Amino acid sequence: MPIVQIEMIGGRTIEQKRAMVKEVTEALVKTINCKRESVKIIIRDMEKHNIADGGVLKCDQS
Amino acid sequence: MPIVQIEMIGGRTIEQKRAMVKEVTEALVKTINCKRESVKIIIRDMEKHNIADGGVLKCDQS
Amino acid sequence: MPIVQIEMIGGRTIEQKRAMVKEVTEALVKTINCKRESVKIIIRDMEKHNIADGGVLKCDQS
Amino acid sequence: MPIVQIEMIGGRTIEQKRAMVKEVTEALVKTINCKRESVKIIIRDMEKHNIADGGVLKCDQS
Amino acid sequence: MPIVQIEMIGGRTIEQKRAMVKEVTEALVKTINCKRESVKIIIRDMEKHNIADGGVLKCDQS
Amino acid sequence: MPIVQIEMIGGRTIEQKRAMVKEVTEALVKTINCKRESVKIIIRDMEKHNIADGGVLKCDQS
Repeated sequence: MPIVQIEMIGGRTIEQKRAMVKEVTEALVKTINCKRESVKIIIRDMEKHNIADGGVLKCDQS
Repeated sequence: MPIVQIEMIGGRTIEQKRAMVKEVTEALVKTINCKRESVKIIIRDMEKHNIADGGVLKCDQS
Repeated sequence: MPIVQIEMIGGRTIEQKRAMVKEVTEALVKTINCKRESVKIIIRDMEKHNIADGGVLKCDQS
Repeated sequence: MPIVQIEMIGGRTIEQKRAMVKEVTEALVKTINCKRESVKIIIRDMEKHNIADGGVLKCDQS
Repeated sequence: MPIVQIEMIGGRTIEQKRAMVKEVTEALVKTINCKRESVKIIIRDMEKHNIADGGVLKCDQS
Repeated sequence: MPIVQIEMIGGRTIEQKRAMVKEVTEALVKTINCKRESVKIIIRDMEKHNIADGGVLKCDQS
């Protein structure tokens, strides 16, 4: 632990993902005092037609 | 909040998804008195070889 | 399928939950043409100190 | 119930998945005394660039 | 990996949970050829008023 | 989006959670260029008898 699941809109580069998992892990180590190697992160790239806010698909939002 | 995650068998059309997120959002607004714009929905399209009931993959079920 | 996971702020009554699962199930049957008995819903009541928007805990938001 | 969500690195064959859902279901029936047909399993195949341990993407790990 | 999330009706004893995680882990090692120590399991005990099948809360089902 | 779900061992203080959601949100804004107010975080406090590594419950690990 901790196990982190991140749903985000697809299209980010692997460099962005590389930086993200590093920074999120550091944020957890720094604030909740867990071991760095214990942090597991799962990223799920979401399509805009599979996310909705207020009843409207993201792909239909201007 | 609320955040809704819907796992469903893949293959639905975008029109079906459009109607689904609208109706599910209205159902929540009507019954738990939340704000429409606060409702977030995530849809995950599942393959039949990645779902199982009673120990049998969906793709193996008649 | 479908399996629906709903995270919402705790405190709703069982009557609200009863109505919610009924209406959400009907919304799915009506829009994605699934069988009513195949719809599974999981509700997770969240504490305000366990949810955050924009980096601020819900319990700290005015 | 129970509902089981399994995140695993992609690339397993359908035979491996077939055996996995069967064995995991038997393990649950045997140990928590649930009905076989009530066990639902969802498998999510993960890409190595979408998983991280200790702040490092799996695809970057030797 | 793999990461396994198990939602089940609350009330099982710790002995049942002990046996379950052992057996589910063995099932994964045996069928998808992963390392035993890599298997992470999360158990979520669910209340009957927070689960529904076919639009009816579990606590309302005979 | 992004929506972040964090499973962690229970017992952290609200101050730790306050700092965690702030830092994790900043990490995401900085690395994947999302809007701060769009970041939603869900925290789930886990009991040691509901987590397992390598087939052994956390509460049984020395």
